[in-house]
Amino acid sequence: MTLDFKVLHQDQTSKARLGSLTTAHGQIQTPVFMPVGTQGTVKSLSPQELVEVGSQIILGNAYHLYLRPGHEIIERAGGLHKFSSWEKPILTDSGGYQVFSLSDLRKINDEGVTFQSHHDGSFHELSPERAVEIQMSLGSDIMMVLDECPPYPSPESYIAESVERTRNWAQRCLRKWQNSKPKFGYEQSLFAIVQGSTLSKLRKTSAQALIEMDFPGYAIGGLSIGEPKPVLFEMIGVCTDILPENKPRYLMGMGKPEDLVEAVSLGVDMFDCVIPTRNGRKGQFFTWTGTLNVRNAAYKEDFLPVDETCKCYTCLNFSRAYLRHLFHSNELLGLRLGSLHNLYFYHQLTQQIRQHIESNNFISWRQDFLNHYKSSSEVNKEEN
Amino acid sequence: MTLDFKVLHQDQTSKARLGSLTTAHGQIQTPVFMPVGTQGTVKSLSPQELVEVGSQIILGNAYHLYLRPGHEIIERAGGLHKFSSWEKPILTDSGGYQVFSLSDLRKINDEGVTFQSHHDGSFHELSPERAVEIQMSLGSDIMMVLDECPPYPSPESYIAESVERTRNWAQRCLRKWQNSKPKFGYEQSLFAIVQGSTLSKLRKTSAQALIEMDFPGYAIGGLSIGEPKPVLFEMIGVCTDILPENKPRYLMGMGKPEDLVEAVSLGVDMFDCVIPTRNGRKGQFFTWTGTLNVRNAAYKEDFLPVDETCKCYTCLNFSRAYLRHLFHSNELLGLRLGSLHNLYFYHQLTQQIRQHIESNNFISWRQDFLNHYKSSSEVNKEEN
Repeated sequence: MTLDFKVLHQDQTSKARLGSLTTAHGQIQTPVFMPVGTQGTVKSLSPQELVEVGSQIILGNAYHLYLRPGHEIIERAGGLHKFSSWEKPILTDSGGYQVFSLSDLRKINDEGVTFQSHHDGSFHELSPERAVEIQMSLGSDIMMVLDECPPYPSPESYIAESVERTRNWAQRCLRKWQNSKPKFGYEQSLFAIVQGSTLSKLRKTSAQALIEMDFPGYAIGGLSIGEPKPVLFEMIGVCTDILPENKPRYLMGMGKPEDLVEAVSLGVDMFDCVIPTRNGRKGQFFTWTGTLNVRNAAYKEDFLPVDETCKCYTCLNFSRAYLRHLFHSNELLGLRLGSLHNLYFYHQLTQQIRQHIESNNFISWRQDFLNHYKSSSEVNKEEN
Repeated sequence: MTLDFKVLHQDQTSKARLGSLTTAHGQIQTPVFMPVGTQGTVKSLSPQELVEVGSQIILGNAYHLYLRPGHEIIERAGGLHKFSSWEKPILTDSGGYQVFSLSDLRKINDEGVTFQSHHDGSFHELSPERAVEIQMSLGSDIMMVLDECPPYPSPESYIAESVERTRNWAQRCLRKWQNSKPKFGYEQSLFAIVQGSTLSKLRKTSAQALIEMDFPGYAIGGLSIGEPKPVLFEMIGVCTDILPENKPRYLMGMGKPEDLVEAVSLGVDMFDCVIPTRNGRKGQFFTWTGTLNVRNAAYKEDFLPVDETCKCYTCLNFSRAYLRHLFHSNELLGLRLGSLHNLYFYHQLTQQIRQHIESNNFISWRQDFLNHYKSSSEVNKEEN
């Protein structure tokens, strides 16, 4: 019942590794960036476009899809792949994070969590077992356990409590999964989530407890929620030092290109983040020399593409001036072209990362990348 | 300096005709439906998608593009085709209609019109000469004269005045166009606009005066603004009875599928309307049996495509239930899939029209179409 994950190459000068993850819906080359499709659609883009920009796997969210349209409807549609016309792998988050960040009046106890829908105020209960059930109805290739993500900062006693609760819930998710029959004729996998906030000791406790249960993969959760950057990377390192080498490691909800490169060097294999699509919808375009906001007056008569070296549909067909016009005119095409370009960039970035791990020069490539990327970000800031 | 227009086949039992219109950016088969790209983009769709659904020519709007981003910028970009990455023909409206419908504090006299921008309240002057200048900067294949469109209903004396003013302005646009050198190395064409509200006598006066000036094409304007349907079609008939057979005829701003079919039978060659895209963005999908609003509760678990016979990207990949989910979740992909399907439908409709004119059974096909189309529209209404 496990995924097939292989480390194809281990970088000699860092913890970075090249891997291959096989699911019922195809193979994924890691390190991989996973676009976020919260409500069963990566905002503004079609499945066809996602394939064209190089997306290997996308995310769905059990909390959102449970509330709307309802996981039973998606199950009756034949699962989320069929419902949303996405044939490649899907990872679904359990909904734990959303219960804590979006819903009102949540009540948490060891049994699970009670919450009110952020849509209509209706009451719902989510238990570890229920979280697995919902994700089995969605038919995602990779399901996530229900976890508790304490806000930053939190008192140590509360963090310890939530680590224990997350361990207990992971155990119950595992049991539920092991005792369930797949609904769509293919096997789904289940990843555990390491919590522990910014405390090394508790991160270790959390990781070790979950490793003992032998999950097919491990996520690092509860980071990138306000803690200082050095602490964030320290915590990632603490986790990847302990997590088994032969299992995929997924850093949840992060990040910017420079953070992604750093986390890869610490041994992370999988990433998701709303930044490329969300920022793209605001007119912020990622390039190899930094970000560029096409809304800026500087681009009013700039008929060059956002990135002259880029081969995405946006850059091959449209100028900064036209994109600026679309954003200032609130035209929907702008949201699409920004999302499309940024995902293409993120996928090119991870492709570069994989290529340079393979050719044993990841660390020197990283330095080159950061030199170019940072210098130009500062230039762009001045233009704003 | 004229377009090349050929009537390829004249229907024997109606005024419908099959034609071919050649512009610097390619050939158009008529009757043709032209999607509206007011601000230099057909809302939510990419140029590539427009080509894929079968769009032969799209509209731009001089009023909007003059105000934002400014026609000089588009001229420096190399024209609207290059700016918006659309390689097929473009028709631009002069901005007359928008000045009267959108802007504040307009003052009209024989010289032209003074108005305030609906964006920022800034003052602008638009004369017939200026309207041609702006459209020459945009580089549209077909430009429209500046006209005055009286609201419905208007007193006869005012309609007569506006017919005379429209004649005078058309004369000045013609002169300006004849004395201008094209900016982009290809010839642009200019269409006149027949006004006269719902008065046959004034429609005739208007048409005859414009015919004398020998324009490359003629539009019928000032209709579909609140007058009764029978009067609308009567006015179209009055115009097409007079307009020269060897020139294209363009009915501005209309309409629904059934109206389009009716107008074709009266001898109209070209159409534009925001209905397919605007209604598509609201979840209303056109099918051969009527319209279907995917927001309806009836489609909650309906896993069929909107139209099982349709070959568009939307119908080949997505169910009514998924589309309903997208619209209820305010997801951008829904707006795209609705627009895409509806334009595909409109282009299939005009293709059917052309085919049946050619095979000499347009009138019997029209009856078949209306029988199926209407009956089901009523069914859908009951479902709402």
